[in-house]
Parts: sequence; C-alpha cells; structure tokens
Amino acid sequence: MSEYLLYYWPGLPGRGEFVRLVLAEGAADWTDVELEGPPGDAPELKDVLQDASLHHAPFAPPFLQHGQTLIAQTPLICDYLGQRLDLSPDYEAERRFALQCALTIADLVAEAHDVHHPVSAMLYYEDQKAPAQKSAEVFRAERIPKFLAWFEQVLANNPHGAGRLAGDRVSHADIALAHCVEGLEYAFPNTMGDALGDAERVANLKRAVMERENIAAYRRSDRRQDFTADGVFRHYPELDAAA
Amino acid sequence: MSEYLLYYWPGLPGRGEFVRLVLAEGAADWTDVELEGPPGDAPELKDVLQDASLHHAPFAPPFLQHGQTLIAQTPLICDYLGQRLDLSPDYEAERRFALQCALTIADLVAEAHDVHHPVSAMLYYEDQKAPAQKSAEVFRAERIPKFLAWFEQVLANNPHGAGRLAGDRVSHADIALAHCVEGLEYAFPNTMGDALGDAERVANLKRAVMERENIAAYRRSDRRQDFTADGVFRHYPELDAAA
Repeated sequence: MSEYLLYYWPGLPGRGEFVRLVLAEGAADWTDVELEGPPGDAPELKDVLQDASLHHAPFAPPFLQHGQTLIAQTPLICDYLGQRLDLSPDYEAERRFALQCALTIADLVAEAHDVHHPVSAMLYYEDQKAPAQKSAEVFRAERIPKFLAWFEQVLANNPHGAGRLAGDRVSHADIALAHCVEGLEYAFPNTMGDALGDAERVANLKRAVMERENIAAYRRSDRRQDFTADGVFRHYPELDAAA
Repeated sequence: MSEYLLYYWPGLPGRGEFVRLVLAEGAADWTDVELEGPPGDAPELKDVLQDASLHHAPFAPPFLQHGQTLIAQTPLICDYLGQRLDLSPDYEAERRFALQCALTIADLVAEAHDVHHPVSAMLYYEDQKAPAQKSAEVFRAERIPKFLAWFEQVLANNPHGAGRLAGDRVSHADIALAHCVEGLEYAFPNTMGDALGDAERVANLKRAVMERENIAAYRRSDRRQDFTADGVFRHYPELDAAA
C-alpha cells in the first residue's frame, strides 16, 4: 500500500497533474486511483466515498488520502503535501503566500477551462462554440497578460529566493505555475508564444521546474499523460490567436 | 488606526462581504478601505499597492492588511481571521477541512457569478443574455442541488458539532455558507425556495448564523450593504425558475 493515494479521473492529466508533479518532485510513494476505471488499488476507499456517512467527503476530484486524512481542493492538497515533502516555505507567512499563489493559479486554470466551456462544463464544446470564441478573445487579450504580469511582479520582488514565487526554495506554487504555463502553451500556442516574450521570469521558472531531476524523470515515465481533448487545457486552434 | 484594513470595491457587498461577516462575528476592529472611492483611511497603503516592488501583492480584491501582513483570496483571508478571532476549529485537520469547505463555497460563488457572465466578466450582461439563459438552466437543475446535497452530507456527518460544517463551534466556513445561501436566495428566489426544502440543515445553519448577536447587529448597521445589480449575486428574473 502506497503512503499516498491520489483519486482522479482516468485518462487525462487534468487538475490531478498539479498534485502528481508535487508528489513526483517530493519523491513520494503514491498510487493513482482511477475513479471511473477498473477496480483500483484501494476499492475499500471507493466504498467509503459512496458511504454518505463520511464527514470529510470531497466535493469533487482530485482528492488525496494519506492515512486517515482525506483532502480535496487542489491547492489545499498541494499545501498539505508541500509541508510534508519540503515543497513549501518554512515560515508561516511565506507558506501562506505560496498557498495564495496556488489559489491564484487555480483561478487562472479555471478561467482557461471556462474559455472552452463558457456556458457550462456539463455541455459539449460543440454546443457553445460561439460564446467560446468571444470568451477566448477576452482571455487572450486581457486575462493572460494580467496574470503573467502579476507572476512577473511576484517573482521579481521575492526577497528570499530568485526564481521562486515564495520562500527560498522551489515550492508547490512554482510547480503549479510551471504546469499551468505548459497547459496554456498547449492550448494557446500562438498567444503564449507572444505573451511569454514579456514574461521572461515566468518562462525561466517553467523551464527550471521542468528540468528538475525528479520532475524530468516523472515526465519521461509511463505515469505522465499527454494533454487530451477532454482535459482542462484543450487546443482548439480557432480559440487561439492567429499565427 | 484599526487593527484590520479590508480593501475592496465600494458600493457592493461582493466577495468582501464574506470577510466583513467574519470580522463582525469576531468583534474585530476593522476599517473598510474603498479601492476606487475617495481617499480612504490608509492612503499610504494604496501607494504601496501601486508600488511594483511589493512581493506579497494581491492579484485582486478583497485583500486584508493586518500589521505587516497582506493577504488576498477570500477563503485564505477568512482562514487567517478565523484563527485569530476564534472562528476556526482548534485542531489542524478540522481547521483544514473548514478551509476546504470555504474553498468549495468559493467555487459555488464563482459559478453563481458566471451564470450571469458566462462569456466574460469583462463584458456586459446585456451582451451575453442568451448564453446566460442556458447557463442558468444547468446551474439551477444540476449544480445548486449537487452543492446543497454535499453541504447536507457534511453537516449531517460532523461528529464534533451539530449544525457546523467543521469542528464544534461556528466557523468562518459556516458564515460563508450562510452568506452564500442568502446571495443565492436573492438571485434565484424561486429556485432556492424549492431547493432549500430538500436541504433543511443548510437552511437551519443559515438562519442560525444570521441570528447570531454580532452578525445581527452588523446587519442592522450602516456598514451592511444591500445586494446590487453590480455584484456577484444578481437577480435577473429571467435566469430564475418560474414561480
């Protein structure tokens, strides 16, 4: 039995990938439990989750089991893991700011998702293509530059460590930003090609995180999944800027 | 100078109200600083915020200043205040679960906002009425019942305290749920009238929180602002269910 069990949908990186990258960088022993696949490694917890008597029930995946602890909400999971895997700043104020950064990244991820599903996540993209087109225009022109400028400011002004969002060593927030940038580059290659030209610190952080030994090994492994047309980050060329 | 300064947009309760209610219940000494109004009580901090050298810069309001500490992200602010104003569970696992609940409530609030602004928060409602109509249908039929059922489960199964989401006393998460329900009742009165019939624990929690002495006094005061047509929760009759 692994120390950590990560529950998520099968077949896509999705929000689970933010957690997997933290587990990988922290050299944690974890099992991916697929929520709607064949019976996983911990079917007994699946039974528990269908048990309506559970107090700390997750509202939605991903969620993490660690011993008797069950946690949902991606940034909260990463904050929890960060404290246990040396991927969170030591001092309380910086630890809190790393979580604040992770929550802001989660907001950007949600906006990136809602671009292709503006009306509802429960309807097909094909049924909301016209509003998606308009939503993508605003996201590309106003939101991506605003978020990137904020990350640049935070990186430029961290008095503790160059190239880190918070504290003096790599944290779960840096890993989240790196993966978020990778997802945006996949979804909006033309837009991000331009935007990262004005966000050199963010581009450098992404490269440095992806080159870390444990993360690079994870990315070469079978566990790492490609982005897909079912995930949070989707590449619809009609939603990106012209080349 | 107040102990706490809360920075937010003027003229609407918005996400700032989740923080104000926690400050009110905790009998905190706080000043509301309006971000785009006349000069507030702490213009020097406004100057600081325009200073691009700030590391812990907030991405968006609301944000809280407490001494040298500056925090953004509504649930994180409320978790911080909860620990200082006895509105957070004592034990770490329950404190974390209160924050998890607050993050899930924030997701519901974001969805309630996006119903009337599905394409973009930066465009007028009038320019996105058709997608808003479809978005509202899904939100009413699927999302409100799913969230309410989850809150019911959490409330039913809290082994520590009846009528609390986490721990054995009222917490910032309970206050957030109460205000969120109030906002949804304002925006979707017909839908919520039906939905709360199947969510008695949630309805009772909301009533109990609103009747608490400090919160009731705040709500009678001049500081409390009505919901408006500019806020997160908006009442457009065409987006609600038929009576």
